[in-house]
Amino acid sequence: MKQVGIIMGSDSDLNVMRAAADTLAEFGVEFELTIVSAHRTPDRMVRYARSAAERGLKAIIAGAGGAAHLPGMVAAMTTVPVIGVPVNITAMQGQDSLMSIVQMPKGIPVATVAIDNSANAALLALRIIGTGDARIQAQLAQHLVDMEHQVLAKADTVAGEYGDVVV
Amino acid sequence: MKQVGIIMGSDSDLNVMRAAADTLAEFGVEFELTIVSAHRTPDRMVRYARSAAERGLKAIIAGAGGAAHLPGMVAAMTTVPVIGVPVNITAMQGQDSLMSIVQMPKGIPVATVAIDNSANAALLALRIIGTGDARIQAQLAQHLVDMEHQVLAKADTVAGEYGDVVV
Amino acid sequence: MKQVGIIMGSDSDLNVMRAAADTLAEFGVEFELTIVSAHRTPDRMVRYARSAAERGLKAIIAGAGGAAHLPGMVAAMTTVPVIGVPVNITAMQGQDSLMSIVQMPKGIPVATVAIDNSANAALLALRIIGTGDARIQAQLAQHLVDMEHQVLAKADTVAGEYGDVVV
Amino acid sequence: MKQVGIIMGSDSDLNVMRAAADTLAEFGVEFELTIVSAHRTPDRMVRYARSAAERGLKAIIAGAGGAAHLPGMVAAMTTVPVIGVPVNITAMQGQDSLMSIVQMPKGIPVATVAIDNSANAALLALRIIGTGDARIQAQLAQHLVDMEHQVLAKADTVAGEYGDVVV
Amino acid sequence: MKQVGIIMGSDSDLNVMRAAADTLAEFGVEFELTIVSAHRTPDRMVRYARSAAERGLKAIIAGAGGAAHLPGMVAAMTTVPVIGVPVNITAMQGQDSLMSIVQMPKGIPVATVAIDNSANAALLALRIIGTGDARIQAQLAQHLVDMEHQVLAKADTVAGEYGDVVV
Amino acid sequence: MKQVGIIMGSDSDLNVMRAAADTLAEFGVEFELTIVSAHRTPDRMVRYARSAAERGLKAIIAGAGGAAHLPGMVAAMTTVPVIGVPVNITAMQGQDSLMSIVQMPKGIPVATVAIDNSANAALLALRIIGTGDARIQAQLAQHLVDMEHQVLAKADTVAGEYGDVVV
Amino acid sequence: MKQVGIIMGSDSDLNVMRAAADTLAEFGVEFELTIVSAHRTPDRMVRYARSAAERGLKAIIAGAGGAAHLPGMVAAMTTVPVIGVPVNITAMQGQDSLMSIVQMPKGIPVATVAIDNSANAALLALRIIGTGDARIQAQLAQHLVDMEHQVLAKADTVAGEYGDVVV
Amino acid sequence: MKQVGIIMGSDSDLNVMRAAADTLAEFGVEFELTIVSAHRTPDRMVRYARSAAERGLKAIIAGAGGAAHLPGMVAAMTTVPVIGVPVNITAMQGQDSLMSIVQMPKGIPVATVAIDNSANAALLALRIIGTGDARIQAQLAQHLVDMEHQVLAKADTVAGEYGDVVV
Repeated sequence: MKQVGIIMGSDSDLNVMRAAADTLAEFGVEFELTIVSAHRTPDRMVRYARSAAERGLKAIIAGAGGAAHLPGMVAAMTTVPVIGVPVNITAMQGQDSLMSIVQMPKGIPVATVAIDNSANAALLALRIIGTGDARIQAQLAQHLVDMEHQVLAKADTVAGEYGDVVV
Repeated sequence: MKQVGIIMGSDSDLNVMRAAADTLAEFGVEFELTIVSAHRTPDRMVRYARSAAERGLKAIIAGAGGAAHLPGMVAAMTTVPVIGVPVNITAMQGQDSLMSIVQMPKGIPVATVAIDNSANAALLALRIIGTGDARIQAQLAQHLVDMEHQVLAKADTVAGEYGDVVV
Repeated sequence: MKQVGIIMGSDSDLNVMRAAADTLAEFGVEFELTIVSAHRTPDRMVRYARSAAERGLKAIIAGAGGAAHLPGMVAAMTTVPVIGVPVNITAMQGQDSLMSIVQMPKGIPVATVAIDNSANAALLALRIIGTGDARIQAQLAQHLVDMEHQVLAKADTVAGEYGDVVV
Repeated sequence: MKQVGIIMGSDSDLNVMRAAADTLAEFGVEFELTIVSAHRTPDRMVRYARSAAERGLKAIIAGAGGAAHLPGMVAAMTTVPVIGVPVNITAMQGQDSLMSIVQMPKGIPVATVAIDNSANAALLALRIIGTGDARIQAQLAQHLVDMEHQVLAKADTVAGEYGDVVV
Repeated sequence: MKQVGIIMGSDSDLNVMRAAADTLAEFGVEFELTIVSAHRTPDRMVRYARSAAERGLKAIIAGAGGAAHLPGMVAAMTTVPVIGVPVNITAMQGQDSLMSIVQMPKGIPVATVAIDNSANAALLALRIIGTGDARIQAQLAQHLVDMEHQVLAKADTVAGEYGDVVV
Repeated sequence: MKQVGIIMGSDSDLNVMRAAADTLAEFGVEFELTIVSAHRTPDRMVRYARSAAERGLKAIIAGAGGAAHLPGMVAAMTTVPVIGVPVNITAMQGQDSLMSIVQMPKGIPVATVAIDNSANAALLALRIIGTGDARIQAQLAQHLVDMEHQVLAKADTVAGEYGDVVV
Repeated sequence: MKQVGIIMGSDSDLNVMRAAADTLAEFGVEFELTIVSAHRTPDRMVRYARSAAERGLKAIIAGAGGAAHLPGMVAAMTTVPVIGVPVNITAMQGQDSLMSIVQMPKGIPVATVAIDNSANAALLALRIIGTGDARIQAQLAQHLVDMEHQVLAKADTVAGEYGDVVV
Repeated sequence: MKQVGIIMGSDSDLNVMRAAADTLAEFGVEFELTIVSAHRTPDRMVRYARSAAERGLKAIIAGAGGAAHLPGMVAAMTTVPVIGVPVNITAMQGQDSLMSIVQMPKGIPVATVAIDNSANAALLALRIIGTGDARIQAQLAQHLVDMEHQVLAKADTVAGEYGDVVV
């Protein structure tokens, strides 16, 4: 069953949002990905948000740029956790979408991640799923270990040029 | 008939938005004023926006603070001109609501005015009405003259302290 | 008769402002487009602003970058609705022109749209015209529907890669 | 069993963070609340983060101001979802803590909410718990309805002054 | 003969702009001070700017807040040096007026000073006058010496608490 | 005799500052141009500033980027008007140099122009010279007329594509 | 012998800078404190900076607000480590002084601390002294332990209200 | 013996941080350079910070981008002076890392330098070493002289084009 929904206002956001899909796929979590625009398809947005819980979604990842209303509006019409990804598409370089997503009023929370960082949105969705799924939680623990090893490997590579630092 | 709708997300915005109502009243234009929250009453917002044109509204003034989605969402569901008033209610001092209101994507315009400046929102609504109403247009022309006279009167007062400057 | 005036301070702004002209043309609304600089042709600006109402303009779209004074100064000398387009031409990336256009003092409203978004300025002008022109209002309603269909078509395209999401 | 941990760097943050505790209490969810400073008690922070999953926490709410490292560092040492609350305590008015919390690098997600909005952090934690707890999800659905009713009641109050708007 | 003109958009700016008048008076330089609003008295502004050179002004100090167009517009219609004082009167805390004043396009310079620092605007006017007036230049040189002595005196006072530092 | 000094911290600023030299040359005003660094040649800076008045300079144009101290430090050691040009050379895109130049404390004025706009710095120097030189003032008046004609010519060119607008 | 010099541009900065003096006194390190203004006492600044090394100073703490040139200018004329404290005294709320202090060009480093945080400037000076003074280094190690204990004590206090959290 | 440690979160930072290594090498100071990530290798970071003093390091240079926690976290676990280099790697162009590094709370100082300016971080480390090493202090004094000569040589080159300015 699909556990995560990835939505975005335009297919031009796909370039940024694909990392969310790839990350979920890596962890073997089923997801759906589609285009839902707060401003251009408000009815579709309402249907998407209102059906999310009953369709079994455990998290919705919503990416949007500029005056980014999609994450907040979806969050207003569901009880599923909504993760907002500010997308850098205007002269304001993502600060407009960050403000539009993170500064939600009391009552309607959106879990905001860094500008253009949809991979972290997926990891956050996985942590949410992991609260009820020991396999995912174990994978996430392994992922932290893997990242640690990757950094240590890079340290070794750098040691080739600058000498070893054992601490 | 009511020509302008003034909406805001909370009665706490009334302090800022009242100047819009007062300005319209000064010009003798009928308006409605109510609370419509994008996040807390999404259905009411949809009904409000979708019925605006047929109810004869010529402009909608929407005030909102923080991640301000009300003006843009209403604009997405009506063809009536929507005027957005960023309201200063967070630590970001209105910059968050300004960004959330003005940086709308191509296709859905919101006429944004200065932070907390609901009087100008009303004057903009009056200019819109004035495009088809000679009486309002004449009143607006008079208003420009009145403001000029007020400034000249202030210049006279200052002249009492600093001497006259005739140009 | 020309219903909309599009003005800008320099022909270098034409690249950004052409989308306003194209949008109005699409809707079959007559417009004029010319160069008017607040700082370099102040007399022309005064004449332009002061004659706008009697020449029948229903909206003036004014684009300007940097310390953008054109929209506000024109608004000060006409009762026609003025729509300001901040143009990104300096190291401040449009934030200077946005501030210079949107933060107008009480009494002189400018309807500000997003940085470089002259298409939305045109759509706002059309909404203003639509308040007294049922044909334009119908076109605008159709435009909202068309945009919705375009997004749904994109959703279908994405479905080819990620599977269908029916909501 | 305690499902949510609320931590903050100093008891001076308690004023802002208490709303998170109150919100969880309202929903009948057990939580713990304590002081953990990334900079002043790094060992305690490591122990807190590393034991969170096995102690059964489903979400950690971490509030911090200035160069706010607590949410990100805790997120680096647990697989439990971490929710960051930027606290406004410096001359930068919360923008420094927002940047320090939301702009996390790829690999370590922090779910960031609005500056000083710890109530929303709690609601986000509740949504996370709700993905595996039908009772909480129902309460959250009811909470959305309650907020809607509160806004409608405010609309009625305003109607006393400005007349009714039925849409 | 009056050598400096001090203008501002509203008598509410007088609180900030009075320091310019006081500084000029201290140096024994004649000046005029009046209210000229770019937006509310555009004709008066044109007359003021166009007559400035022939009336013998050597500098114009123009203070304005928000979307501050007065300094730039006056500069566009005179060859007299124009000094702009951004006044802090909106939620943007003077950043809007700073941007509106300093970011002038090529061709029309405005000499911008710090937010609310009208005393420095007067000192700049005095430096301009001093390029052709040895007495003023000598006074300015003395002013630098006086400020130095004031700081040294403060150093002596502090030495009472923290001990002397002779360098 | 040289009337204007153009200084900058590095020859890498020459690209931006050359427009000041070109503008002065166009007006037939003699100037000097050299490298003076506040941080790398503080003694040279002191000598430059302290000798400026007796060497007959009527204005000093100082360009600097990043933490730009040159304009303010030179202004502290001369009574000659100092014009500061913020140069965009860091990741802060000129905002750091603008802040460092414009926000001078009471007592030491710097006439700040737009980021990278050294041509306006030269025009400001010319306006200062013009206060005591009728020929330069006439040239400046002609320059305003020339710019007006250039814009009108551009309007004519645009008229070729969009039709004439006579106002 | 005095090991640290604390300087500031005005006695009005003393309120912010006193914490540096108090911190050094707590650690038993001798220091000098005086007023040195980059703009008002440039000669004194040169003498102060140039004599710092031979007078045995191991660190100079320089506090300044607005266009803050003192730390950078002193750093340009000494080899002693200079620590800059941005002081919040203008409408820009310390961001101007932060930019003016931290964005130094290549070649002249200034160790910048948080806005108004002169206590940290003192702790940084102590760390510098500690690189050659085992007693100070031991005191600093103890200071870290003391802060840890203070936070743990606060945790205990909070436990009185919210229950104990042992990790 | 190695006197300076240079650390960074990823080998992608090496491009920016190499200038620190090159500068130390120029001065003949031994250093170590390695990868230490606050978020991906927290244990390594703890070991690195806690062993720094006993391993004889006199300064740690830590570069990091985005939500940059490395400098502050290392500073929390050592008494060695920590120098933070904000690295420009996100859409926020280094402002996020600057905020995350410089705005440290009272008690834990980080000596922050300009965005991407790792050469200055090395020079600051050298100044710290120079407080106890006359040879390094002499080299630093010579470095200031060398930079002065380089600027004077550039002035000579510019003199070829614009004429000599002897002051």
